[in-house]
Amino acid sequence: MEKNDYIFGIRAVIEAIEAGREIDKIFVKKDLNGDLANELLARVKERGLVCHRVPVEKIDRITRKNHQGVVAMLAAVSYCRLDDIVPQLYEDGKLPFIVLLDGVTDVRNFGAIARTCECAGVDAIVIPERGSVSVNADAVKTSAGALHYLTVCREKNLTSAVKFLKNTGYKVYGAAGDGAVCYTEPDYTEPTAIVLGSEDEGISRDVLRLCDRLVSIPEFGNIKSLNVSVAAGVLMYEVVRQRRSNS
Amino acid sequence: MEKNDYIFGIRAVIEAIEAGREIDKIFVKKDLNGDLANELLARVKERGLVCHRVPVEKIDRITRKNHQGVVAMLAAVSYCRLDDIVPQLYEDGKLPFIVLLDGVTDVRNFGAIARTCECAGVDAIVIPERGSVSVNADAVKTSAGALHYLTVCREKNLTSAVKFLKNTGYKVYGAAGDGAVCYTEPDYTEPTAIVLGSEDEGISRDVLRLCDRLVSIPEFGNIKSLNVSVAAGVLMYEVVRQRRSNS
Repeated sequence: MEKNDYIFGIRAVIEAIEAGREIDKIFVKKDLNGDLANELLARVKERGLVCHRVPVEKIDRITRKNHQGVVAMLAAVSYCRLDDIVPQLYEDGKLPFIVLLDGVTDVRNFGAIARTCECAGVDAIVIPERGSVSVNADAVKTSAGALHYLTVCREKNLTSAVKFLKNTGYKVYGAAGDGAVCYTEPDYTEPTAIVLGSEDEGISRDVLRLCDRLVSIPEFGNIKSLNVSVAAGVLMYEVVRQRRSNS
Repeated sequence: MEKNDYIFGIRAVIEAIEAGREIDKIFVKKDLNGDLANELLARVKERGLVCHRVPVEKIDRITRKNHQGVVAMLAAVSYCRLDDIVPQLYEDGKLPFIVLLDGVTDVRNFGAIARTCECAGVDAIVIPERGSVSVNADAVKTSAGALHYLTVCREKNLTSAVKFLKNTGYKVYGAAGDGAVCYTEPDYTEPTAIVLGSEDEGISRDVLRLCDRLVSIPEFGNIKSLNVSVAAGVLMYEVVRQRRSNS
């Protein structure tokens, strides 16, 4: 995440406060009111945050997006390291579940996937340093605040990350089309990592080769193109389903 | 259909109706009267078209052309009738699967859900005449073209549609939060309809009451708010999963 990043929108800012993010200051437009706004202002007071009531033009100058009259300026946050997270999950006695994104550059898709990861109880999301989205304010907003809670690892490259996961006992599944088995076939009741590629290109060849198994979601219509964030949701909740029916 | 596919002017709209053009809805300014206006309103009534009397400013916002107080929005798809579709599905020997949208007003969510419906092999998507999105060019675009293939029924009201489906042997499941069973519990290997509500409001009370069962997707994180199109995908593919593992 970049320094001096902003978060826009009432709900997203409330979530940032709730998540204990370091907030530099908040601009709230002068005449903002309503239940959600009051909720925000109550949190601001409670935490003793610096908050300025400003003319809406001031916020408009910061962004042309739909800010709902609220913008929070954040301090930068640091990513987690996969080699810290993985032993920690084992120590915590968790049955781990990690999602890796290979080449997902669309910030909305990234945010949507992060949102689902958080809801599905994914332990960490892994993105590469290059060829991926940066976890900026847009991503946070699209994630409905999920990125404040979700552990995000940014790794030098994904092939090393996949090798590392395999070496530490994970089964790694790549979401792919041709030559893949139906996504419901594998047994996800062991340490599991799922790799998702971009909508256009899919998973890169080097990563694909390393996957233990390739899985696909059956499609019956004419367009045969699930949105990547919907596909991610279907895959993640199959893992959840198996683990719940198993326990 | 191109963006802004509107027809302006009283005479032009009457002609569009006469020509059998698929009309999504018509805005008529509140105080419009005169012989030609009455002729228009008579046609509207006769064909059962959706017509809203609105302040002239609402029409002014749509166009700066000489609209004479009347604008018709053309539909991007041809709507089907649920009471034509349901017997047809039985005749075709299909195990039917229908999705109903209650109060989904966000055109992107609608398009995304339609896209997943088409991929998951849903037989028809049902929307209400009022309080729903218009199936316009934006919806078609967001659906990645799925709306060209998917059967769309637009019904006067959803409660009647739900009653009709129940009377014809469907089990109707409402996606809800509290008081719902886990979505994996029901048996979807019979004629199935799933109702999805808006992200903010959920399913309306009248429709909720009619559902055979309410189902929810377990959420484990802090935000507890799956995107509606992701939730739709998870639900639809559970139906698909059960039917595939059953056959």
